[in-house]
Amino acid sequence: MSENDNLTFLDDLGLGFAVDRLGPAKYPTPMRVGCLTGDDERILYHTDVAIVRRLLDEGCELPSFERAGPREQLFFNPIGLRAGIVTCGGLCPGINDVIRAIVLCLHYHYGVESVDGFRYGYEGLIPDYGHEPISLTPARVEMISDFGGTVLGTSRGNQDVGRMVDTLVTRGVSILFTIGGDGTLRGAGAIAAEIARRGLPIAVVGVPKTIDNDIAFIERSFGFITATAEAQRVIEGAHSEALAARNGIGLVKLMGRDSGFIAAYSALADSQVNFCLVPEVPFALESFLDALRDRLAARGHAVIVVAEGAGQELVGRTGARDASGNVKLGDIGLFLREAINGYFKELGTPINLKYIDPSYTIRSLPANTYDSAYGLLLGYNAVHAAMSGRTNMVVGYWNNEYTHVPIPLAVYRRKTINPQARLWNNVLLATGQRLASPA
Amino acid sequence: MSENDNLTFLDDLGLGFAVDRLGPAKYPTPMRVGCLTGDDERILYHTDVAIVRRLLDEGCELPSFERAGPREQLFFNPIGLRAGIVTCGGLCPGINDVIRAIVLCLHYHYGVESVDGFRYGYEGLIPDYGHEPISLTPARVEMISDFGGTVLGTSRGNQDVGRMVDTLVTRGVSILFTIGGDGTLRGAGAIAAEIARRGLPIAVVGVPKTIDNDIAFIERSFGFITATAEAQRVIEGAHSEALAARNGIGLVKLMGRDSGFIAAYSALADSQVNFCLVPEVPFALESFLDALRDRLAARGHAVIVVAEGAGQELVGRTGARDASGNVKLGDIGLFLREAINGYFKELGTPINLKYIDPSYTIRSLPANTYDSAYGLLLGYNAVHAAMSGRTNMVVGYWNNEYTHVPIPLAVYRRKTINPQARLWNNVLLATGQRLASPA
Amino acid sequence: MSENDNLTFLDDLGLGFAVDRLGPAKYPTPMRVGCLTGDDERILYHTDVAIVRRLLDEGCELPSFERAGPREQLFFNPIGLRAGIVTCGGLCPGINDVIRAIVLCLHYHYGVESVDGFRYGYEGLIPDYGHEPISLTPARVEMISDFGGTVLGTSRGNQDVGRMVDTLVTRGVSILFTIGGDGTLRGAGAIAAEIARRGLPIAVVGVPKTIDNDIAFIERSFGFITATAEAQRVIEGAHSEALAARNGIGLVKLMGRDSGFIAAYSALADSQVNFCLVPEVPFALESFLDALRDRLAARGHAVIVVAEGAGQELVGRTGARDASGNVKLGDIGLFLREAINGYFKELGTPINLKYIDPSYTIRSLPANTYDSAYGLLLGYNAVHAAMSGRTNMVVGYWNNEYTHVPIPLAVYRRKTINPQARLWNNVLLATGQRLASPA
Amino acid sequence: MSENDNLTFLDDLGLGFAVDRLGPAKYPTPMRVGCLTGDDERILYHTDVAIVRRLLDEGCELPSFERAGPREQLFFNPIGLRAGIVTCGGLCPGINDVIRAIVLCLHYHYGVESVDGFRYGYEGLIPDYGHEPISLTPARVEMISDFGGTVLGTSRGNQDVGRMVDTLVTRGVSILFTIGGDGTLRGAGAIAAEIARRGLPIAVVGVPKTIDNDIAFIERSFGFITATAEAQRVIEGAHSEALAARNGIGLVKLMGRDSGFIAAYSALADSQVNFCLVPEVPFALESFLDALRDRLAARGHAVIVVAEGAGQELVGRTGARDASGNVKLGDIGLFLREAINGYFKELGTPINLKYIDPSYTIRSLPANTYDSAYGLLLGYNAVHAAMSGRTNMVVGYWNNEYTHVPIPLAVYRRKTINPQARLWNNVLLATGQRLASPA
Repeated sequence: MSENDNLTFLDDLGLGFAVDRLGPAKYPTPMRVGCLTGDDERILYHTDVAIVRRLLDEGCELPSFERAGPREQLFFNPIGLRAGIVTCGGLCPGINDVIRAIVLCLHYHYGVESVDGFRYGYEGLIPDYGHEPISLTPARVEMISDFGGTVLGTSRGNQDVGRMVDTLVTRGVSILFTIGGDGTLRGAGAIAAEIARRGLPIAVVGVPKTIDNDIAFIERSFGFITATAEAQRVIEGAHSEALAARNGIGLVKLMGRDSGFIAAYSALADSQVNFCLVPEVPFALESFLDALRDRLAARGHAVIVVAEGAGQELVGRTGARDASGNVKLGDIGLFLREAINGYFKELGTPINLKYIDPSYTIRSLPANTYDSAYGLLLGYNAVHAAMSGRTNMVVGYWNNEYTHVPIPLAVYRRKTINPQARLWNNVLLATGQRLASPA
Repeated sequence: MSENDNLTFLDDLGLGFAVDRLGPAKYPTPMRVGCLTGDDERILYHTDVAIVRRLLDEGCELPSFERAGPREQLFFNPIGLRAGIVTCGGLCPGINDVIRAIVLCLHYHYGVESVDGFRYGYEGLIPDYGHEPISLTPARVEMISDFGGTVLGTSRGNQDVGRMVDTLVTRGVSILFTIGGDGTLRGAGAIAAEIARRGLPIAVVGVPKTIDNDIAFIERSFGFITATAEAQRVIEGAHSEALAARNGIGLVKLMGRDSGFIAAYSALADSQVNFCLVPEVPFALESFLDALRDRLAARGHAVIVVAEGAGQELVGRTGARDASGNVKLGDIGLFLREAINGYFKELGTPINLKYIDPSYTIRSLPANTYDSAYGLLLGYNAVHAAMSGRTNMVVGYWNNEYTHVPIPLAVYRRKTINPQARLWNNVLLATGQRLASPA
Repeated sequence: MSENDNLTFLDDLGLGFAVDRLGPAKYPTPMRVGCLTGDDERILYHTDVAIVRRLLDEGCELPSFERAGPREQLFFNPIGLRAGIVTCGGLCPGINDVIRAIVLCLHYHYGVESVDGFRYGYEGLIPDYGHEPISLTPARVEMISDFGGTVLGTSRGNQDVGRMVDTLVTRGVSILFTIGGDGTLRGAGAIAAEIARRGLPIAVVGVPKTIDNDIAFIERSFGFITATAEAQRVIEGAHSEALAARNGIGLVKLMGRDSGFIAAYSALADSQVNFCLVPEVPFALESFLDALRDRLAARGHAVIVVAEGAGQELVGRTGARDASGNVKLGDIGLFLREAINGYFKELGTPINLKYIDPSYTIRSLPANTYDSAYGLLLGYNAVHAAMSGRTNMVVGYWNNEYTHVPIPLAVYRRKTINPQARLWNNVLLATGQRLASPA
Repeated sequence: MSENDNLTFLDDLGLGFAVDRLGPAKYPTPMRVGCLTGDDERILYHTDVAIVRRLLDEGCELPSFERAGPREQLFFNPIGLRAGIVTCGGLCPGINDVIRAIVLCLHYHYGVESVDGFRYGYEGLIPDYGHEPISLTPARVEMISDFGGTVLGTSRGNQDVGRMVDTLVTRGVSILFTIGGDGTLRGAGAIAAEIARRGLPIAVVGVPKTIDNDIAFIERSFGFITATAEAQRVIEGAHSEALAARNGIGLVKLMGRDSGFIAAYSALADSQVNFCLVPEVPFALESFLDALRDRLAARGHAVIVVAEGAGQELVGRTGARDASGNVKLGDIGLFLREAINGYFKELGTPINLKYIDPSYTIRSLPANTYDSAYGLLLGYNAVHAAMSGRTNMVVGYWNNEYTHVPIPLAVYRRKTINPQARLWNNVLLATGQRLASPA
């Protein structure tokens, strides 16, 4: 619903857009539908005409993604093939949709009947944990998309790569689908590297999962629309609370460790938001508090949305890391609550602050219709890619086309809001906020 | 959806069920519909045949409520009449529905055209605050029931009773509708007493509001069904989180200061709940932790719902009070989170606890269909009662009939779950929990 | 949310409220919770004090229902017991909740492990159809309440009673739970009679299902609150359509063959309804059309809700019957659409009528929180009743207590809106409609 | 969530992508945010690398859209400016969001204080109808996005262009925003042409509205995601009905006169759909009925989704047209119901068909979060375009960027599903359907 201006980096030009393959495809596809995708079909990375012209003028090649889709020739013989699926990291609406799509596509479109569902993330690939894989049949996955979470379970953190590859070999798994975020993809990349080192014919294909929508080179991650809708619902409650009290303030903390997309889109979708604070745009605390004071004086209430990663320079990150390797954040929500209460106490102005931290209630929802269909097609295209022998890649979405994105490219940087570009500009227009940067 | 067993107190027999009136009704109603309620229509308090028989055998009168409804004769002449509405205390789904119903009923059914909407609770009746009342017309309230909160604003705490009555006199307000909970009703009772002391022809009629459903002599308060539905939604998220992790625990803190109805009904509506902790049923911490350990060992995940007022003997109440006069509660949610984490750390069992505190998101919702219709009829009946000259009362609902409840009766005690009776028994059946009482 | 005034019939006094039993209960309950219900506990039928006084004065016994709940002694030995469940007639939100509750209660509370799920209604009890029963285990039913419909399937119409009893005997089924409406209950009554004739120790216990809320002696049927909420949603759409056009008319046809409860409650919950037409209150077509004309002249738009059984004297019932034995209705929705269009064409007034018939979309929904909890407790209480040896009865709900209702009483009459009483009066107040009766 | 393959037409190359302007922009923008859009910023039409290379090889210019966004210089002086808004044609979720965004952007971002809301479509521009315009202030539009429909009202059909321009002149309206579909845009084009003929400085800027998502050169129309979500909800009900009966068939008719996007996306989002019939893909009736028979034989139930414009060659269009100039469609839903019932009657196979036509309930919904944010930015960009002096254009969305689309381009053709491309291919994969084309 908004622009990708934040996504187009001129300095990414040197990166590789080429996708690894296990080897030549030699089996004809058993799929009986007509529209197949050619191996040379590609989607432009840039759509800004000025950029394209400059690249052409400079004799550069136009960067582009390989288009996803079913291929005429497969690398794997579907008969007797075994695939595996693993889900890692935090919950996100739509994981079950992706699992379901992979299983149904393997079964009905390719005739692959054996799918291992590894349990509790990468732990499921290490026998010591004793997590027996689930056999994923169409009957087992038929109704799972009505539920949030993941039927496979999940965990954070990586495991020994060699032993995970051993497990694939032992169980005869030829394709591993990994559904997870940045850390998971790095793990998948390591698994693919180890497979390559051993010269094994095993494909590793990821479906990128991030509720923060912060995976680069992918327009929008599944579950994001669902999460934004629920965030808006919470903000509406905060607005009702703010309106109902003299100098009422609704303060909502949302997800967004490094990227404030949920906060930003929520602010657009619910134009009751007066202040939207995101990690990408540092703000001076005094400027914020003064602006809040002015807003209360003018309108008698205010709604503030803050992404969890915003204002970390104020709360003092400790630098500690969690099991996924993410830096532990200081709690900006509680910090702001104290700061606001203190500020107005000093001013002698009674306020009425309601602090809301919806936390896990957003990410544990089932996918809405949009994300459900999106998860279906991400899952389908992951299967098409793997069957054709692609590996060390994730399925992406770019300029409304499903694409193949090499894992090194996907983890090269995080996608963040560009404070100079259109999305953030529209947030400023919608909220009316004007905050000074930190000194 | 469950039984009222908790509501029938034999020792309440001595209480007065008679409703105060300002004086004889002498104006014929302008209402043009046919079904009027006689002043002698009453609804039995008890429906248990054994109790009724015993009372009859002992020669006692059967306690009963006056039935609410439109009367043939009014105390007030609607022509030129002015009414006022005030909303106090915390938010609750449906306040706007009640406001709307009162305004529409006054306007369309009785021809009363002047309705003052006092702002920010009882503050709105004290001129010093400078809150000018809103003129509540049908056009102003037409669409407000689509929004949560209260269009009038609210505040906690009482104000000087004499000055509030002065305001009513000065503005020519003949009926004051108060929408609020226990504290508000006590305030309304004080206003009614002062009015009586001065011999003024002003009616004070309340619509009881409590998201905890804890007002005695009233089956179910408006907004409760909406709140329970949202609580269930949150619990479903906690269940998804718990299922998705090894030894996953979803811990949800819900409203319920003294009465655990929301927690109890949520446990019935979402039978994924394994432990339901309420203020009325103290539990031994060790017993709870051991049972949680057994549950994890057996099933690998658990869902816990705790009402905010549960286990206060564990967290140590300080005895401090908030602006509404409520005792400040210790935070049982955070306490349990620490206790559970500590217990399993000591056991050496890794767990994965997700703590969810939906807080204001529940009470700030708009009313669902059920509560919207309920709020409409509570509002209508409040108007009927006031126009007939009833005062110092609230509109209740008992055995599926709208009733008149004297304020002293309504505030005489809080309604709580009876641990020996059917509602709690069904919670025990639905959760399967068996916890020891504190030593 | 409204009153039961329509439910209290003085002329029902002669009916029998006594429930059949298979024989003396002799097995101690294995249930480990504390609150058991005594066999002599009863709930008053009337709560109107005047009626109760008159009955007492006349020396009549006060009619009352047996209270439902777990008994100390069981008729059946749970060990090795086999039960069966059958669902019949049209869909209704919550059927799966009831199935789930029965299975879980039998399994966890009584230790009954064998439950046959008969398929496609009473057909499932006739071997010729070849519908093999489903084995209903806790794992099978765990998540079914998230889905609408019935996992057992359903059908209309009765089957040969003797052969159905033969099936119960052959399969060793000692308890048959029937979830269905009027026709189903009559069928269940016939089965119970045949069982009695043969002197078999088989219990037949029903859970009444009717989306029209028209089963007598039961306050509210499960699914009704869900259905009303969805009806309101549809009406809101009709209101948006009506508002958006010059002389816009939104005409919504809702369920309600003989009883207009859904239409009436929807009108209360969505006070945008200007005309509510129900089977119980005949209206003169001209009066309605003239009133509609006046409404359009005054406000420029109108919303009409019509129950499918309304105005049958206008459309001319043919007297034909469907497979369930219900009289086929004339289509009042299409009739009104034509009549309204014709009337305004003749007047030369251009109108813009939008006709909406949500039909199956309402009854096929999953139960909302309220109905889910209600379905749970109906199911529990059906099991308690059956285990104690009650038979030829349904579980009811009356004055907020779960009750036992003999099948002959439940099918004695349909529950309908009393046009002279409070519910309808409130609909008239909420809509403002005043229509003449037919000449 | 799916690909735009259907949108890229090589034969559109000759069309003009240049946008009309009223004259040079000379007033500096009063907007205080930083990111302005240059007049030379453009977005590529094609992203397929092969197409782009071929065009470059052939020396063709790459077709591109002007990028939307706030400009540094305005054509209009905001001080004293008056704008008007008109909404035409059928309802669609999000119209009120667009109205609100236009008013707020004019007011807060540009300082334009006078906005006329013309009532009931183009009728509102013809004085004879007597529809006085609404004054659209921020307070008036603040909460309207919570409601479906349009606060301005709407109508179908065009009006006398000269007289509409007279009205703009008389009222001093300098910008006319038209929110509507194909017919509305043609009308807007005619108004712009008449304005140009008279040499008036009046801008005409459209926001394209079509619930069928069938406006060319625009990726997705607002309201489409909301409509698809509701369609899925209806299909779930049909699925519950189908599952609950022996040989149960759920038949759902959805919108889609010439383009089956809602049906296609619904089939992707709810993979319970077994047959998806759209206008773009004719099918042989016998082939469909035989496939349905095979499906029932294999699985015992089936779900069919049919767009209203599908199979018109079967039902026999009459060629008649409605007030908007659209060809009147034959009723394919009722036709299929009869055909299916007849077919199985002849086969002697009892079936159980439930027909659902949700009709107006979908289009009259309020916008969901996604469409609400989308509507906001469409409205903002419409204002930016108009203030800069663009005219005879609509705001579009292409490759995730907001664009300017000349009206002649937007109405040049309808956007339809390409039966040879990826979207339809995925529908075939998701449903598994294989139907023969008509002979």
